[in-house]
Amino acid sequence: MLAVVLNDPSTGAIRVTSDAPLPKRRDGEALIRIRMAGICSTDLELARGYMDFRGTPGHEFVGDVVEGPPALTGKRVVGEINCPCNECDLCRRGLPTHCRRRTVLGILNHAGAFAEFITLPAANCHIVPPSIADEHAVFVEPLAAAIHVLDAVSIGSDSRVALVGLGRLGNLIAQVVAATRCDFVAVGRSPRSLALCEQLGIKSASINAVQATMDYDVVIEATGSADGLQTALGLVRPRGTVVLKSTYATPPTLDLAPLVIHEITIVGNRCGRFAPAIEMLARSDMHLEPMIDARFPLMQAPAAFSRAAQPGAFKILLIPDGSPCAS
Amino acid sequence: MLAVVLNDPSTGAIRVTSDAPLPKRRDGEALIRIRMAGICSTDLELARGYMDFRGTPGHEFVGDVVEGPPALTGKRVVGEINCPCNECDLCRRGLPTHCRRRTVLGILNHAGAFAEFITLPAANCHIVPPSIADEHAVFVEPLAAAIHVLDAVSIGSDSRVALVGLGRLGNLIAQVVAATRCDFVAVGRSPRSLALCEQLGIKSASINAVQATMDYDVVIEATGSADGLQTALGLVRPRGTVVLKSTYATPPTLDLAPLVIHEITIVGNRCGRFAPAIEMLARSDMHLEPMIDARFPLMQAPAAFSRAAQPGAFKILLIPDGSPCAS
Repeated sequence: MLAVVLNDPSTGAIRVTSDAPLPKRRDGEALIRIRMAGICSTDLELARGYMDFRGTPGHEFVGDVVEGPPALTGKRVVGEINCPCNECDLCRRGLPTHCRRRTVLGILNHAGAFAEFITLPAANCHIVPPSIADEHAVFVEPLAAAIHVLDAVSIGSDSRVALVGLGRLGNLIAQVVAATRCDFVAVGRSPRSLALCEQLGIKSASINAVQATMDYDVVIEATGSADGLQTALGLVRPRGTVVLKSTYATPPTLDLAPLVIHEITIVGNRCGRFAPAIEMLARSDMHLEPMIDARFPLMQAPAAFSRAAQPGAFKILLIPDGSPCAS
Repeated sequence: MLAVVLNDPSTGAIRVTSDAPLPKRRDGEALIRIRMAGICSTDLELARGYMDFRGTPGHEFVGDVVEGPPALTGKRVVGEINCPCNECDLCRRGLPTHCRRRTVLGILNHAGAFAEFITLPAANCHIVPPSIADEHAVFVEPLAAAIHVLDAVSIGSDSRVALVGLGRLGNLIAQVVAATRCDFVAVGRSPRSLALCEQLGIKSASINAVQATMDYDVVIEATGSADGLQTALGLVRPRGTVVLKSTYATPPTLDLAPLVIHEITIVGNRCGRFAPAIEMLARSDMHLEPMIDARFPLMQAPAAFSRAAQPGAFKILLIPDGSPCAS
């Protein structure tokens, strides 16, 4: 089958192969034919060597179950990416997304969705209602991650909240947080992202104009840069919370003294539940069209990755059976 | 009056003067004659230049109110160290210990307790019950900071909790956390601290023998070293909490990726309320005698600081009217 391969030492950072082996479906799993997949910043980092990744990436997808439990077969699905063992201490404590032996679709020991087919545990699959188009369903995974911010912190209508970083994930977080009707500002760098916020009625500010006022109850850091983290720490009030939504390619040096003096809480935040994200899309609460930059056939994955890596790029979609230059 | 002076550029890191001006008491303040004061790690850092400190340090004390509101005059008191403006946004939000214009006794723009007299707002003063000896009352400030850990995290009888760092503050935290009856281990370096834990019936482990098991719900970091922080991060489970109780002279480089991947919470934690600490001492719940290493007259403060800076040293007390070599 067709699949993207990253970091094969003999062929370089990224290539497409037409003879990848079809993944073997095991009991309790679904075999899924990919309709569409999205490139996220983690994929770009994997291509640069993050987690010493080799193999097929891709974890944002929508597809059809072609083989598996009867309840799923023939259905259009999206899928949660963490595949737990259901046996370790963390699984037993109700933390399957943190399973010690988990595989993670397209990230850790599990061939990903930049391919014609994947396998996933049936329990990970969620049927997509017909009202949600493929182009929107492919956002379920990052939207679930965006909504998961609300699991980490309590945001009420009187909360002062700032978001730093308006990239692919940041824009989704901005829409999710704005929907809570709190006192909210989205801080970004690219004029395009700031303009999109304005278009959606979300208060925004350029990161260059932001002062370290230390008066926000909650600050969400979604830049993945040391500068962005410093901006976030300058905005949060004493006893406030900074939510970390992105990983850092280069570990930043973090002066921890202000954390102690101002009693700041920093909380890491990763994958979220799919059900609320699917509900949000079914209600058409999200404005996703402005966030889709291009559709590429899977064959042209190297060009798609280059496009996704351009500064300010939003979502690039990959389509296994897409004709060339589909966008 | 007699007072310690740190970092006077003309006289060096630490000296004692006999002609420090008596602090001027303002309305609403108490003038306090110091009976006894304790040297803590922050004082040692101030002597090394932390916060560009110059002047008289000292924030752990017990003394007698010699001038002030009638309800306090003649009373033996301990005092909270943050002096708020009561007017700024943070004071109005109920965060006076984070007041934007606060002074902090012996730390920030407020002459400290390594002197014969200090002034403090009357509202900061707490009368000490007669049952608490001076040598114990002087521990109220650090004990309040130790108890404050329990304000930052919920610790139940089924919580697995580890403490990393058994210095002056760490030993107090160990006793406070052990009293919650949770599943607790205190991790330290010095044989003396580990022996003290054993003597008090507190499970302990050498930091050299600790594995990164990632299975503690709560880990309290009280070493102030980058190594200690790494140990703490290796012990905490996914979605667990690390409480930072000490500042770091040299900002450590912190790889934030594991915080996001494992959804760890890090929470800075500083000063606590005095009332619970006074109650705990009045109930004789704490074993403080083994933690007092020596008593020095204030005149011998340079020698007292040297002694306090020795590896593994516990509490060194300074007594303004103490005769030489009181310990």
